[in-house]
Amino acid sequence: MEPLVMGIDIGGTNVVLAAADAKRHVVAERVIPTRAVDGPDGVLDRIAREVERLLTELPGRSRLAGIGVGVPGLVSSTQGLSRISPNLGWRDVNVAEYFHRRFGVPTWIDNDVRVATLGEHVFGAGRGLRNFICVTLGTGVGAGIVLDGQLYVGVTESAGEIGHLTVEKEGLPCGCGNRGCLEQYASGRAIARRAQERLREGVRSSLWTLVDGAVDRVTAKHVAAAFAQGDDLAREVLTEAAEYLAIGLAGAIHLFNPERIIVGGGVSLAGEPFLELVRQAVGRRVWEVPLSAVSIVRAELGDRSGVMGAAALALRRLSGAV
Amino acid sequence: MEPLVMGIDIGGTNVVLAAADAKRHVVAERVIPTRAVDGPDGVLDRIAREVERLLTELPGRSRLAGIGVGVPGLVSSTQGLSRISPNLGWRDVNVAEYFHRRFGVPTWIDNDVRVATLGEHVFGAGRGLRNFICVTLGTGVGAGIVLDGQLYVGVTESAGEIGHLTVEKEGLPCGCGNRGCLEQYASGRAIARRAQERLREGVRSSLWTLVDGAVDRVTAKHVAAAFAQGDDLAREVLTEAAEYLAIGLAGAIHLFNPERIIVGGGVSLAGEPFLELVRQAVGRRVWEVPLSAVSIVRAELGDRSGVMGAAALALRRLSGAV
Repeated sequence: MEPLVMGIDIGGTNVVLAAADAKRHVVAERVIPTRAVDGPDGVLDRIAREVERLLTELPGRSRLAGIGVGVPGLVSSTQGLSRISPNLGWRDVNVAEYFHRRFGVPTWIDNDVRVATLGEHVFGAGRGLRNFICVTLGTGVGAGIVLDGQLYVGVTESAGEIGHLTVEKEGLPCGCGNRGCLEQYASGRAIARRAQERLREGVRSSLWTLVDGAVDRVTAKHVAAAFAQGDDLAREVLTEAAEYLAIGLAGAIHLFNPERIIVGGGVSLAGEPFLELVRQAVGRRVWEVPLSAVSIVRAELGDRSGVMGAAALALRRLSGAV
Repeated sequence: MEPLVMGIDIGGTNVVLAAADAKRHVVAERVIPTRAVDGPDGVLDRIAREVERLLTELPGRSRLAGIGVGVPGLVSSTQGLSRISPNLGWRDVNVAEYFHRRFGVPTWIDNDVRVATLGEHVFGAGRGLRNFICVTLGTGVGAGIVLDGQLYVGVTESAGEIGHLTVEKEGLPCGCGNRGCLEQYASGRAIARRAQERLREGVRSSLWTLVDGAVDRVTAKHVAAAFAQGDDLAREVLTEAAEYLAIGLAGAIHLFNPERIIVGGGVSLAGEPFLELVRQAVGRRVWEVPLSAVSIVRAELGDRSGVMGAAALALRRLSGAV
C-alpha cells in the first residue's frame, strides 16, 4: 500500500486539509469551516471525521502514515501542544496526541506561520534557499524564519513575532499590551479598519459600491480589489500600510541579513503593485549591502502554503529529516 | 615553546592588544592610539611594531601561533578583508594578509562587534549560552548574534545592524540614509548631543561643573557619571535613550526569542540603574512568553570584550573549531 500523509492547516475561519504521497503530490484536498465556538474537542472531531471521509474516497492501496498540523498561536512542537491560541480560544490542547490516538499514526504540529514557511521552503518561493523570512499578512502579522536551511524557533518557540515590532512609538494599543505594533498598521484587520475610518469621513471611493454602502463590511480583500482597479483611497490606505510594513521588514533585514523576504497571507493578494510600494519603502530604510542581497517576493502557494507545509512537516519527519 | 595568540581590537580611537596562551590566560596587554589619519598602512604598521615589542618582552619560550583581529564596519571574514569601515576611513584593506605576511602566522579577522560578542561568549556574560544577542552602545550601536552556539552573520556578513532599526518613523536623519535609526537616539554620540541640547536650553545640571561650563565637551561618559550622582537632566536624557533602546531590543527579542541580551559599550558604564530603565521599558513592549525567557545584563568584560574575543577567535580557529 502506498503511504500518504495528511496535512492539516487550522485557521481561525477555515481548516484546509490535503493528502500527499511520498513524492509530495497532493492527491486530495478539502476546506471545512473551523467553527472555533465548538471548542477544541468539537473542532478536532470535525477535522478527524473529514480526514476519515477523505481517506475512504482514496484508492484502496493508500494508507495513512503520518499527520502534520499547523495551529495558530504559541505551539510546543516537541510536546505536540497548542499552548496559547487566541484566535481559536485554545490553551494547552494536545493536538498531536488527539490525532495519534484517533488514527494510530505519528502526528507533528507547529505554529501556522512556521508551517506556511516550511510550505514555501519545500514547494514555493523559498525552494533551495538557506536564509529567508516568510511574513504572513493575515488577520495578524507573523513570520517564519529559516536560517542555514532550518526553521529557527528561538528558546521558547516564539521567534518570528514580527507583528509585535514597534513601528510607532506612541501608537495604537495592541492586544499584546504594547503600543504601536506593526500588526495594528499592516494586518488585514488594520487595513480594513483604516479604510472604514476614511470612508466614514466621507472620502469618495469605489469601495462604497463594492459593499453596497455598508462600510462595516469592508475587508482588506475589498481594499486589495479596489486598489487593483486604481482606486485612490485604497491606494492611500495600502501605501500607509506598506510604509509601516517596510519599517518591520527593514528591521528584520538589518538583523538577519537574509537572501529573501517572502510575503504571504490575505493582504498579499493586493499583488505586485502593493509589493512594489513595500520594496520602495524598504529601499529608503535599508543600507546598501544588506539591501543588495535581499529580494522581496510574494508567496507562491497563496493560501495553500499552510496546508502544503503541514504535509511537508509530516513527510520530513517520516523520512527522518529534522 | 609555548604557543600564544595575539588578540587585536582596532577601534576608532584606540587599539587594544592582548597576548593569550592556549589556556586562555592573558599574559600581556597594551593600549595604543589608532590615529586613523595615518591611513591603513600607517595604522597597521604601528600595531605590528607594538606586537613585536610585546613579543620581545615575553619569556623566551613563547612563540606566536596566530592572530585574531576585530575591525569596525563591514568585514569579509572569509577573505580577511575590512570592506568598508567608516570609522577608520578604510575600504578593502586586507588586514589578515598584512599580519600574515609580517608575522608568518595565520590571521583571522571579524567585525569588532562580533569579536566582542565572541569575547563575552567565551569569557563573559554569554558563557555556556546557545542563543543570545550582544548589543554594543558605543559611538554607534551594533549587535552580535549567537544562535545555536554559533555567531550568526547573515548572507553578506552584515547581520546584527540593530543600530539601524527605525525607532521613530519620521525621526532624525542617519548617515545610512534612513530616518529615525536607533543609533540616533541611544548611541554615546546621541546621548551626548541630547544632553548638550538640553544644557543649551539652560537646564540646571551637575553636568555644567563636570565640564567647567564647556557644553561642547559633554560626552556620554559625563552623562553616565552625572546620572550615578542623581542628576535630573542626566536621568531624563538616559530615560529617553532607554525608551528608544527598548524599542530596538524588544524588536530583537520578538524576532529571535533569545535567552539573554548582553549590553556593552561605553553607554553601559551608566550601570545597573540605566539597565533597570531599559528592562522596565522592554517589559512594557514584549509579550509574556519571550519576556519570561530573556534576561538583560551588562557585558562582563567591559571595554576588554573586543580584545578578548579577538584572542578567542585565533584560539578557536587554531584548535580547529569553527
